[in-house]
Amino acid sequence: MTSEFELIRRFFTRTTAHSDLGVGDDAALFRARPNMQLAVSTDVLVAGTHFFPDTEPEALGWKTAAVNISDMAAMAAEPRWMLLALSLPEVDDMWIARFSSGFSMCCAEFGVDWIGGDTTRGPLNLCATIIGEVPQGRSIRRSSAKVGDDIWISGNPGLAALGLQHLQGNAQLDDGWRDTCLDALHRPQPRVALGIALRGIANAMLDVSDGLLGDLGHILEQSCCGAEIEESCLPLAKLTEACNDIELARKALFSGGDDYELLFTAAAPQRAALKALSDQCVLPVTRIGSITNDSSAIWLISDNGSRQQLAAAGYDHFAGDNG
Amino acid sequence: MTSEFELIRRFFTRTTAHSDLGVGDDAALFRARPNMQLAVSTDVLVAGTHFFPDTEPEALGWKTAAVNISDMAAMAAEPRWMLLALSLPEVDDMWIARFSSGFSMCCAEFGVDWIGGDTTRGPLNLCATIIGEVPQGRSIRRSSAKVGDDIWISGNPGLAALGLQHLQGNAQLDDGWRDTCLDALHRPQPRVALGIALRGIANAMLDVSDGLLGDLGHILEQSCCGAEIEESCLPLAKLTEACNDIELARKALFSGGDDYELLFTAAAPQRAALKALSDQCVLPVTRIGSITNDSSAIWLISDNGSRQQLAAAGYDHFAGDNG
Repeated sequence: MTSEFELIRRFFTRTTAHSDLGVGDDAALFRARPNMQLAVSTDVLVAGTHFFPDTEPEALGWKTAAVNISDMAAMAAEPRWMLLALSLPEVDDMWIARFSSGFSMCCAEFGVDWIGGDTTRGPLNLCATIIGEVPQGRSIRRSSAKVGDDIWISGNPGLAALGLQHLQGNAQLDDGWRDTCLDALHRPQPRVALGIALRGIANAMLDVSDGLLGDLGHILEQSCCGAEIEESCLPLAKLTEACNDIELARKALFSGGDDYELLFTAAAPQRAALKALSDQCVLPVTRIGSITNDSSAIWLISDNGSRQQLAAAGYDHFAGDNG
Repeated sequence: MTSEFELIRRFFTRTTAHSDLGVGDDAALFRARPNMQLAVSTDVLVAGTHFFPDTEPEALGWKTAAVNISDMAAMAAEPRWMLLALSLPEVDDMWIARFSSGFSMCCAEFGVDWIGGDTTRGPLNLCATIIGEVPQGRSIRRSSAKVGDDIWISGNPGLAALGLQHLQGNAQLDDGWRDTCLDALHRPQPRVALGIALRGIANAMLDVSDGLLGDLGHILEQSCCGAEIEESCLPLAKLTEACNDIELARKALFSGGDDYELLFTAAAPQRAALKALSDQCVLPVTRIGSITNDSSAIWLISDNGSRQQLAAAGYDHFAGDNG
């Protein structure tokens, strides 16, 4: 039977580009560049809670890395070093080879050294830790939104939720959109370049992992402010085209996680800079509303000017309200 | 039902002493001190594989932190920052409160800031990541043992294994030793002060988590050398006293993990320095043999000078040979 050490040697040992010591000792070693703050985050994916047990292992490997890298993007940090703690019910060499291939492909794509981890027997559980760097004082936090800020979202959040609805048999997706939605679900693209480019432009930021409303709620709570969302500005067109169901599209946008787009606030004079950034990153950014002083409340302003208060319902792994 | 965010707020948010941002954003932020290398390691504990599901939650919390902190000791690094990713089958507030109390008590004891983590639903799985600092170039690795080095072990490894054997009904422990063995199993003491003090003294080092022989084997393999162990030097007295069974004592020493003692090599002229260090740290260190040029082989030299080759059998979570 393949031993833990053989597994590590065969599948989890990669050359590193900017580390002093990688896999194989009690700890990995690296150095921060001068005047850098270190950002660190850990995320766990559990079979049955975060993914179907039969998900393609390459896709799962990619996603495990991507959701962690996205946390660096959300802080305007550059992702640099990754660790993976893997619990596996059994040793299936082919599964592990494919999983680690997807994981390491995502790390390579974003310039991340895979420097360590742990492998053990247990129910399938994927716990990755990412460490990144951000120039001293230039990270973008959740707590610094200002009243009057525009609220922006990158990309087309909701596509991944439609992909999930499709897999669960709850949505009939347009043929031309199916692969796009499944790709968004299985191979999310952390918005690292955009996150870094937003230094000095965005006031508050996070990545949308629990749904637009729930994650906006985190910014509002930590920044002690509220928000008005303009219905006419919402990026619903592609979602609606994909599923032919405006209600489902809106639900996917508001409550679907899994796209890992960036939600951020910026002062109105930054609009021109943001247009330029969007072109530079080849990624749409959409202004969907503004920050108010109405503590933690989210109001939806319809085309005719009527106002409706929204609940900041996102994904809660324990409440399981849309899991 | 208690939500994920409420859980984090109530149980997982601690003040930090040397960090710029703790729990609550997409990532935590901290700065390395000048001329420091960063050391990082992740370890996962799984119910059923690493601990009994009914283990006292405080003890489990302590141990989850301790095994990670021990990886810093093993690199001669100072443990500084910790993250905890917790998968829980259900929300049991009392269990979580007790677990996080044990975890944070261990962090506090060793000066570690608990700065982040993740909480999700799933089979019980505890994944901690530790980051520490070591002055540039002063870490102690597994790969740098030199032929002729003495081999040293701290403390009394094997006590934890006897504790486990007792819980499994396989050992009858002496009344006076039972609590000591169970304490070694449930509240291992990472040898941080010793590890740091060994900078410039030890050539190679690791912490014994998989058993003395298996872990010695890692040093030998990475240092491309062999070892001779002198039977008369082995710290078996206390183990034998505890279980009244010399064979069980020897098995606990050779193959038991879970004590997290430090195994290291040092040149013979360091013996006086090591005696002083041992006094300073109030921790016995025992010279058990020496490094040879006999690639990866471990020989046991008995009192009468006869030689027996030992298999470097440690704990392998997949092979499960002594799990």
